[in-house]
Amino acid sequence: MSINTAVHAWQQQNKTIAALFDKYDAEVYEHEVAPGRNRADYLLGHLIASNDSLLPLLGFGDRLFPELEKYFAPNTEWSYDDYPTLAELKQKWEKLNNTLSVHFNKLPANEWLGKHTKVSEEDFATDPLRNKLAVLVGRTIHMGYHLGQLAFLNEKVAI
Amino acid sequence: MSINTAVHAWQQQNKTIAALFDKYDAEVYEHEVAPGRNRADYLLGHLIASNDSLLPLLGFGDRLFPELEKYFAPNTEWSYDDYPTLAELKQKWEKLNNTLSVHFNKLPANEWLGKHTKVSEEDFATDPLRNKLAVLVGRTIHMGYHLGQLAFLNEKVAI
Repeated sequence: MSINTAVHAWQQQNKTIAALFDKYDAEVYEHEVAPGRNRADYLLGHLIASNDSLLPLLGFGDRLFPELEKYFAPNTEWSYDDYPTLAELKQKWEKLNNTLSVHFNKLPANEWLGKHTKVSEEDFATDPLRNKLAVLVGRTIHMGYHLGQLAFLNEKVAI
Repeated sequence: MSINTAVHAWQQQNKTIAALFDKYDAEVYEHEVAPGRNRADYLLGHLIASNDSLLPLLGFGDRLFPELEKYFAPNTEWSYDDYPTLAELKQKWEKLNNTLSVHFNKLPANEWLGKHTKVSEEDFATDPLRNKLAVLVGRTIHMGYHLGQLAFLNEKVAI
């Protein structure tokens, strides 16, 4: 039940983000969330790329959307001219969340408390809190972090 | 161990917030985090008042700082002239986190999965995810939400 609680919180954040990107016309998301900050559609892409990395990190398989990495990795060249459309991003968000949910619901509780793929057996023995569940909770907080920023988008609509 | 993972994530968010409010000179936190948004010191007060409500909500006792409620409750009159200083807020943040940590560490795992004080037995029977652990995870995400906004404060320092 404690795993379910964490998975449920994860899914709630997914839904809140999906609802936020359904709220306004597509061009609203091309605005920066605050002066000099990232565009809302950039933050959605970042969240997709970040959560997509959970597939290899938790041992579920390869990323679904490796083509997104170039927009978010440091020192890569890209332009908004070939950045995915909002419709494409929303589709990827939904597909990713469905895929992750299937894996999350199949993972036995004891494996949630096992190590993720980026920590060595030695380091995990010293710090058992570097488990898969901690990764899930951390990424859930990460969605909340950017939701806090996306909330600043509201007033652009009035312009 | 799954409870420990959640409590650890909670404590990490506490520390990240404390570190952010140690980073700059006090007057920096009197800035709005973005134009027309809340001041950073207001967000810290809000987080204190919000987490303070966990004491009654989780059945641990009364709030430590009921005097803060007027600044954050709707339809109450207040002014920044009598708003707590940054030093006072930081002290309250530390005291509150220490108090909550003692309660969290004493609560047995099965009680984390029990109902919180604001849900009825009937509603809890229908939705067992309305448990104490869910409240903890929700408030941890809430800290992340405002941390995302507080991160926008950085550039004020350059001004």
